[in-house]
Amino acid sequence: MPKQFISKNTLYRLPLYLSFLKCLPAECDMISATSIAESLNFNHVQVRKDLASVSDGGRPRVGYKTTELIADLERFFLRKISDNVVIVGMGPLGYALALSSDYKAFGFNVVAAFDHDERVIGKRCGDIEILPVSRLYDFCNAGGVRLGIITTPQNAAQKICDTLTESGAIAIWNFSSAKLHVPEDVLVYDENLTASLAILAAHIKQSR
Amino acid sequence: MPKQFISKNTLYRLPLYLSFLKCLPAECDMISATSIAESLNFNHVQVRKDLASVSDGGRPRVGYKTTELIADLERFFLRKISDNVVIVGMGPLGYALALSSDYKAFGFNVVAAFDHDERVIGKRCGDIEILPVSRLYDFCNAGGVRLGIITTPQNAAQKICDTLTESGAIAIWNFSSAKLHVPEDVLVYDENLTASLAILAAHIKQSR
Repeated sequence: MPKQFISKNTLYRLPLYLSFLKCLPAECDMISATSIAESLNFNHVQVRKDLASVSDGGRPRVGYKTTELIADLERFFLRKISDNVVIVGMGPLGYALALSSDYKAFGFNVVAAFDHDERVIGKRCGDIEILPVSRLYDFCNAGGVRLGIITTPQNAAQKICDTLTESGAIAIWNFSSAKLHVPEDVLVYDENLTASLAILAAHIKQSR
Repeated sequence: MPKQFISKNTLYRLPLYLSFLKCLPAECDMISATSIAESLNFNHVQVRKDLASVSDGGRPRVGYKTTELIADLERFFLRKISDNVVIVGMGPLGYALALSSDYKAFGFNVVAAFDHDERVIGKRCGDIEILPVSRLYDFCNAGGVRLGIITTPQNAAQKICDTLTESGAIAIWNFSSAKLHVPEDVLVYDENLTASLAILAAHIKQSR
């Protein structure tokens, strides 16, 4: 396992299953695709298919042993090779992301941060150094950086993204509100926090 | 405008149109729903419907005047009343969110932060004070807090969410990886950063 290439849509749901399962009380030692689907508001046929792509522990009418399904999902996400990551844009959000302890579990290793502001260049953030953005291409190219995290303003994001993909990054975690254009083999995952705030604001406005 | 209640799915797309339009070069003074749909990989019928719900400036075969469409979208998100916001969980991410300058544009006003750690309680983060989480209910209840931002660990999130909604919050911005259960009139917007990392990691693993 996994037996086959996992589609992007399945890929987007698998971590949600994992965090849901890890949240279950110990009494839930068995779990069915149907009840996962109900809890997460997904289609149960889809959930069944998604889970079958990473685990063969499902039994008809009974479901999965919760611990086994968690282990199969974790095995899917586990990577033996660790990949280098850089963060570009060292505002408060860049700092917060640099200090996060989440990377290791997914085989990521944050190796450097970049900014164009002379006042922060040369400083450290946790274990890493903040370098001038002019060194981004050479650093990533030499260091085999596979994931670039962009926390710059919207108007700077596309150029940074181009530099990252040209130097070998194949995944971009985009916290700017720019719609980034990338080569076909590169995955951009958007966290558009401004858009999220707009949605929350509109909900409150409509609720009045 | 808006003429009618906007559905959740439309609501989720409107900010994406706005950030896309704001990113266009000045030469693009006219824009059609079709070309917006192509750029954002959305269905063009959907885009046409979404835009019609907030703007009546669309002309057949020509599209929208870009500046007018931006103005209509901004008017939709503009609120005259500003709402109080609290942040719960003052790790590095909580700090970064507290220091963000994005709130004002959406009528939000961050009034306090909460944590259970004695070492940070009483400290300030920008203009706001960090209060003990034991005071969360009374503070939100008295202060008319409508939006709660949760940046706590997964296992603490549901209890915090319950306190927020019981004290009057109708929108939750959830940065924990917990799947939160809320009353029907409350909108939870998830930013599951751990899940995003998992997706990016799986993409890189599959690309090898």
